[in-house]
Amino acid sequence: MMRKEKDSLGELEVDAEYYYGIQTVRALRNFNVSDRTVEEFPNMIWSIAAIKKAAALANQQIGALPKELADAICNACDEIMEGEMAGQFPIDPYHGGGGTSLNMNVNEVIANRANEILIGVKGYDPIHPNTHVNMGQSTNDVIPAAMKMATFLSLHTLVEQLKELVYVLTKKEEEFKDVVKTARTCLQDAVPIMMSQQFSGYRSFAERMVEDVEEMKNRCLYLPLGATAVGTGVGTFPGYLEHVYTFLPQVSGIPVMMELNFFDGLQNADLYVKVSAVLKSIATGLSKMASDFRLLSSGPRAGLQEITLPAIQPGSSIMPGKVNPVLPEMVMQVCFRVYGNDVTITLAADRGELDLNIWEPIIMTCLFESCHLLTNSIPLFIDKCIAGLVANREVCETYANSSLALATVLVPILGYTKASEIAKEALARKLSIQELLIEKGIAPEEVHQLCDPVAMTNIKQSSQMISQRTK
Amino acid sequence: MMRKEKDSLGELEVDAEYYYGIQTVRALRNFNVSDRTVEEFPNMIWSIAAIKKAAALANQQIGALPKELADAICNACDEIMEGEMAGQFPIDPYHGGGGTSLNMNVNEVIANRANEILIGVKGYDPIHPNTHVNMGQSTNDVIPAAMKMATFLSLHTLVEQLKELVYVLTKKEEEFKDVVKTARTCLQDAVPIMMSQQFSGYRSFAERMVEDVEEMKNRCLYLPLGATAVGTGVGTFPGYLEHVYTFLPQVSGIPVMMELNFFDGLQNADLYVKVSAVLKSIATGLSKMASDFRLLSSGPRAGLQEITLPAIQPGSSIMPGKVNPVLPEMVMQVCFRVYGNDVTITLAADRGELDLNIWEPIIMTCLFESCHLLTNSIPLFIDKCIAGLVANREVCETYANSSLALATVLVPILGYTKASEIAKEALARKLSIQELLIEKGIAPEEVHQLCDPVAMTNIKQSSQMISQRTK
Amino acid sequence: MMRKEKDSLGELEVDAEYYYGIQTVRALRNFNVSDRTVEEFPNMIWSIAAIKKAAALANQQIGALPKELADAICNACDEIMEGEMAGQFPIDPYHGGGGTSLNMNVNEVIANRANEILIGVKGYDPIHPNTHVNMGQSTNDVIPAAMKMATFLSLHTLVEQLKELVYVLTKKEEEFKDVVKTARTCLQDAVPIMMSQQFSGYRSFAERMVEDVEEMKNRCLYLPLGATAVGTGVGTFPGYLEHVYTFLPQVSGIPVMMELNFFDGLQNADLYVKVSAVLKSIATGLSKMASDFRLLSSGPRAGLQEITLPAIQPGSSIMPGKVNPVLPEMVMQVCFRVYGNDVTITLAADRGELDLNIWEPIIMTCLFESCHLLTNSIPLFIDKCIAGLVANREVCETYANSSLALATVLVPILGYTKASEIAKEALARKLSIQELLIEKGIAPEEVHQLCDPVAMTNIKQSSQMISQRTK
Amino acid sequence: MMRKEKDSLGELEVDAEYYYGIQTVRALRNFNVSDRTVEEFPNMIWSIAAIKKAAALANQQIGALPKELADAICNACDEIMEGEMAGQFPIDPYHGGGGTSLNMNVNEVIANRANEILIGVKGYDPIHPNTHVNMGQSTNDVIPAAMKMATFLSLHTLVEQLKELVYVLTKKEEEFKDVVKTARTCLQDAVPIMMSQQFSGYRSFAERMVEDVEEMKNRCLYLPLGATAVGTGVGTFPGYLEHVYTFLPQVSGIPVMMELNFFDGLQNADLYVKVSAVLKSIATGLSKMASDFRLLSSGPRAGLQEITLPAIQPGSSIMPGKVNPVLPEMVMQVCFRVYGNDVTITLAADRGELDLNIWEPIIMTCLFESCHLLTNSIPLFIDKCIAGLVANREVCETYANSSLALATVLVPILGYTKASEIAKEALARKLSIQELLIEKGIAPEEVHQLCDPVAMTNIKQSSQMISQRTK
Repeated sequence: MMRKEKDSLGELEVDAEYYYGIQTVRALRNFNVSDRTVEEFPNMIWSIAAIKKAAALANQQIGALPKELADAICNACDEIMEGEMAGQFPIDPYHGGGGTSLNMNVNEVIANRANEILIGVKGYDPIHPNTHVNMGQSTNDVIPAAMKMATFLSLHTLVEQLKELVYVLTKKEEEFKDVVKTARTCLQDAVPIMMSQQFSGYRSFAERMVEDVEEMKNRCLYLPLGATAVGTGVGTFPGYLEHVYTFLPQVSGIPVMMELNFFDGLQNADLYVKVSAVLKSIATGLSKMASDFRLLSSGPRAGLQEITLPAIQPGSSIMPGKVNPVLPEMVMQVCFRVYGNDVTITLAADRGELDLNIWEPIIMTCLFESCHLLTNSIPLFIDKCIAGLVANREVCETYANSSLALATVLVPILGYTKASEIAKEALARKLSIQELLIEKGIAPEEVHQLCDPVAMTNIKQSSQMISQRTK
Repeated sequence: MMRKEKDSLGELEVDAEYYYGIQTVRALRNFNVSDRTVEEFPNMIWSIAAIKKAAALANQQIGALPKELADAICNACDEIMEGEMAGQFPIDPYHGGGGTSLNMNVNEVIANRANEILIGVKGYDPIHPNTHVNMGQSTNDVIPAAMKMATFLSLHTLVEQLKELVYVLTKKEEEFKDVVKTARTCLQDAVPIMMSQQFSGYRSFAERMVEDVEEMKNRCLYLPLGATAVGTGVGTFPGYLEHVYTFLPQVSGIPVMMELNFFDGLQNADLYVKVSAVLKSIATGLSKMASDFRLLSSGPRAGLQEITLPAIQPGSSIMPGKVNPVLPEMVMQVCFRVYGNDVTITLAADRGELDLNIWEPIIMTCLFESCHLLTNSIPLFIDKCIAGLVANREVCETYANSSLALATVLVPILGYTKASEIAKEALARKLSIQELLIEKGIAPEEVHQLCDPVAMTNIKQSSQMISQRTK
Repeated sequence: MMRKEKDSLGELEVDAEYYYGIQTVRALRNFNVSDRTVEEFPNMIWSIAAIKKAAALANQQIGALPKELADAICNACDEIMEGEMAGQFPIDPYHGGGGTSLNMNVNEVIANRANEILIGVKGYDPIHPNTHVNMGQSTNDVIPAAMKMATFLSLHTLVEQLKELVYVLTKKEEEFKDVVKTARTCLQDAVPIMMSQQFSGYRSFAERMVEDVEEMKNRCLYLPLGATAVGTGVGTFPGYLEHVYTFLPQVSGIPVMMELNFFDGLQNADLYVKVSAVLKSIATGLSKMASDFRLLSSGPRAGLQEITLPAIQPGSSIMPGKVNPVLPEMVMQVCFRVYGNDVTITLAADRGELDLNIWEPIIMTCLFESCHLLTNSIPLFIDKCIAGLVANREVCETYANSSLALATVLVPILGYTKASEIAKEALARKLSIQELLIEKGIAPEEVHQLCDPVAMTNIKQSSQMISQRTK
Repeated sequence: MMRKEKDSLGELEVDAEYYYGIQTVRALRNFNVSDRTVEEFPNMIWSIAAIKKAAALANQQIGALPKELADAICNACDEIMEGEMAGQFPIDPYHGGGGTSLNMNVNEVIANRANEILIGVKGYDPIHPNTHVNMGQSTNDVIPAAMKMATFLSLHTLVEQLKELVYVLTKKEEEFKDVVKTARTCLQDAVPIMMSQQFSGYRSFAERMVEDVEEMKNRCLYLPLGATAVGTGVGTFPGYLEHVYTFLPQVSGIPVMMELNFFDGLQNADLYVKVSAVLKSIATGLSKMASDFRLLSSGPRAGLQEITLPAIQPGSSIMPGKVNPVLPEMVMQVCFRVYGNDVTITLAADRGELDLNIWEPIIMTCLFESCHLLTNSIPLFIDKCIAGLVANREVCETYANSSLALATVLVPILGYTKASEIAKEALARKLSIQELLIEKGIAPEEVHQLCDPVAMTNIKQSSQMISQRTK
């Protein structure tokens, strides 16, 4: 069963069962490139529907839209927001025109559904997708406004996962508070550190990421809705602007506000460069942590073996018994993708042109993908790697005691030159610093106080110990 | 209905209807991040199955694998290659371990299906996924080898589309051979050019891309298959190496050969940096072409209007009658994505480590996506934009005649300084170069010979014209 | 004249005239790759010297460093901060070890100069570069701390230029407040806009950039100084930490504070990802503005010609009279570089490893280059392009009146479908919307009220006009 | 002493001592952004001069340029090519107009010097920079042609260094041919490998890079010279085209040829995307090698310690005796820069527009920087790291014997499942595979044949050993 629809370019048949219409069908034919659909971005469709509902309520309020029509539009919007219209948004995310096809897809679904509600049959009379559903709006303000709302929602989900990450890292910090090990800089043995201190760095990083994401959420609250086509608001009825910003926070539950300068709002997409930079920042920290875990768990016989990661799958199709750090490796690949997506987003922001940045579909594709990948990978990282990560205390302690960097405490006492000579001799003669000092006649008790790895990780203890010996 | 399977980490239940097994189930739980599956890369699964079949034939040939078992494995491989196992490869492309999960997914499907063929029930006896299906192989050689084959196949499909692009551009070149226009450099009016010449540049570019892709296809023919885990070939039976390279070209129809240095083959992924660079090169040309078409079709009243693109959908939800260059805009966004993917691929290649580059899953994800997007967007670009692109001949000719750069021919005759003065005066007085020259007393006939835009596009005519006037 | 110096690897001769010493000479030999030196980053050297001075004051205060030595060190630091040691910092910015060579270069210059001040000859006695100048410090806390301070200073200079940009754009906004033109979206004619509105978008963007940079400046105030090698503060004397944070703000004039978690401070470099993202954001807006100016000034005969840019140099070596938008083109290339630098910075942040991110030299190189290029190009953009940019009012007005998008106001009055038909007919018959409406019998006065481009740019006027006609 | 010069925009004073002229002075004022000059790219200036000379010879040959003038021009070109004009090319590499300023800088230097040669004083009469030096040329063909030649020359220098890299790696391969170690994949212990095999992978990589660079050199031989402004060759005299391609190979010693399609030649810059991709490929391999060396030399007490790198400088300002892998770290940072430069180059290629890609100055800046950095860092990498790299044979052998992956040989003999159980038990009980097998009753002699790490690295030996045990 097909129904006919018409637009300014002519007439086409549409499968009668679908709520989308002729412009959606055109878009399907024009942009079939990625085997993906905008339904991969549910926050985006939800946000557009919320805007359509708020606009209908505003237009009704100011007398531009009859109540009957507004009610039907609102009901259709509710259905979309509740997920009942799954499958009705088949547009490829890669489409031109700054999101016109996506906006029209939603307009058409709402119009067909609203007319069905109102008069029992799909169609565009009395409710027309442009004249009524899109009343007072343009793709050029609806899509950027919806993108900000959808970004807000996506970041909100991400931040919840980051908080879980803070939680698990805090627990590991506690768990490792008495594990002393050697730190490494440039991959070379350095002074001792408590494993809890190392993990406190991860935790502190995650806490900062929570703050960074929250800040970006706030930046998403200022919308260009009401700008219509180019920022002048042409095509709106008197009072629309004020009312739509009364209704939209109610409809969406997001405390959105009007952007100060609509022209800027349409011209520039630097917000997404900054949101993506925060996603990249998260990625740099996750990737580092994952990389550290791979390195520290290397072995089991010919590696560092400071920690052991939970075994979650056999590691090799040919080498029996091998277990690989596959979870960190998945996380790292997610991060590599996030970095690539950032380049695409930057390019799209750079290409803003005259009165509108029309590249928001690809920004949306990349930004939401980055956000989604991070949001999904963090709980897996927590559950299948971090939570069960075990410290090999003996290995760590052996490393801590054998490090030549213990000679660092000798610098303030003996000067850098003499301390270097001691370290060099210990290396050449395969002795520990402690052994060499004892050999040189220093009392073992004094040596163990001087070279106590745990004490060296505490600035109060280490500075007092040094201070006592230099006075 | 569930069946039990066991691996070195323990026992799990698997839905009895599936051919994949325990390690696939583990991977599903470990890596559920992207909502995508490796089935998005059918060339990859096909290539792994081809390798498994060739390996079974080789192992049978050298007496390492009983014929009965080999036959069953080959039959299972054939089914995969014919697409009958759709839905059996649910692994997320983002997985760690250098593709172990993907290799094991295929091993398990083959083992379960081969045993079913052989004895009527799924299971790993007599045919075991590691011992028999993976015989003489490792993830570490199978995945890189399959990636090269799959890249070959994907590039092959792409090159077909590039040839279509050459064809349509050749036709447009012919169509526009008598359309004279002004060239523009730095967006400022320059000397005349035939529109066919401009399009010959596009066509020549597309021809070069065909060559570039063909060269990359050739580079994909050298496989590390036989390297097993780290390049030493440990775990193979005598004769396997020679025979697998006899069978694989037969099984796959691709003239693959053994790589010279297996260690290099596993350590380095620079091939994909270069393949991606060719994809990027294609993108730079497509993006430029798309960008040119947008610019030249700008208007209809306040733009260049040199060409008109086919109208394929209404352009605006608010501005009636507007038609946007949505197809070029889709193409440009595809190109932006290709650039971002290249960064991810580069990073993954950079991170190669010790005896293996384990980041091939993300390389695969990005490379095949880039290739797929380009392959899909070219025919749309051709059919819905280039083929129907029309030259507005009168507009073009008017531009050609009014360009002040016509004064370029005066340089060799009058010297650069005098020619500049004439151009400046024409600009200031809003005259054409021709009008000014006539005003300055040069015979109109001579002026029209001097400033004939069409003649200026032909080096023989223009150089002779100049030559006659400087002797 | 050479002098001998010695370090833990042996003895080398150093030209007696230089204040730098043996480790600097080693670094010169080890890292001669880029033909550049760290003196390209004067804020960095200044900041390290400020830290050295503050550390000497703190160490003196707590009794760890004799006053005489501290005084000499402080004097040497002052000389560096005043620029008197130009030429003494010849290290290539590309060096390994997380900046050890840079830190030692400064330590050596200070030690040699301080001893010269103290005892009349260069050398390391009584003041030793490690034992005394570097007392309580490590490269690992000094370099990251100095980088934050230097970033603060560099951003401070940049923000001054951004404020100038805001100023000139505000002036142009005022200048263009009565220039009506057609907006363009997707490069196609859209509804009218005042040129001042367009420029208000640029101005608003620049204002936001000022805020963004100020926020990043604030983030640079939290230093890891005191962390020493790995975050534990080992090697410091009691009280150093408190006192160094009392002295450093005094010495530097920058209100720096102690970072909350030193381990995080050394492990992660995400700050620079975010600073670079703000630099990229600035670049996206500058590049867009530059690109808009190129487009709008295209012509002079076969382009848009809405604006004319100041002619600052002849445009072509062969085409007389041609003038190119070379300033915007320079700006755009600066922006392209900034985007590339961001990728390098991201990679360096991603590679943080265990207890330290050692890639700060390359971060420094790219970040300060991006900052410097933007800081230098903005005043040139202002002085040689924006300030003298002229609107071609008649051209703009003609475009505004001829745009078919004037039909947008008909949508709320006649509905989208009828408005589309009118726009289509006007296009086909080469009429303006106004002409067609008059032809259709609408009174000319009414047509001019309906289609008044200036009124359409004012939401109050346009919405009331529409409202009156729909009641 | 100043002299006056005049161009189409007016008159300016130029310091009389300089050979450059008014347009260079304008460019100096317009583009002072990067504190760098085009003299950083000596191959570029050399190539432009070579083109100018070949053009003068061609124009003289066809009678367009008097012999006297041509001779003076050729002499001036020779002086530039011999480096006698150092300091005369002060243009900032960041300049707009597609290199007009650079082309005019060279034209002016040649004209002033040629007139000085001819008549004893600088000036533009009888030889004019545009009319005579630039005769038959445009910036638009000269700059792209010179860039290809300069790229050829730069790649030539690079390839010499790559050959040195092949040489030193071949020597290390020989040196390490009897060092057995454990391979690692996913950083986990894998089957044994000879260190020579590992290094053969590096060597094979370097050999491929030599081939890749040679191929790119060949691609640089096809020039758009003769295209003049937009590809049509307008402004040339009859015969110029043929003759310039006779003279240029003689003048330059580079076997350059005419490009097939000049329009393509000016429109597209994909060549540089591909050249940069080869530079990136080199970087991925160098970075991997450098990263491997850091990892394998980690320690000295708490790391892998498989190899020891030459100590080239003290490693820490605070930790005495520490030695860091600073050379590999410098190399890696060079590679990070190369990746970032590639993004900038890609963007510049993407932005090609209508009849010319005008972004060649930034392409030049990034491409030559990448090439220069790689060319300079390779010999340092060789001399100060690779050549003196030492294998710690005992450590390596211990690792090889203790690896649980020795159980891999048991798979074809006992099946994957049993082999896994053995590996698991050995891990749990902290035994070697050999110890466990002996404990399980297998004869020690048989165990040592089965688990001989050296034999396992040789496919003939390992496959026969397996074969004998499975028959």
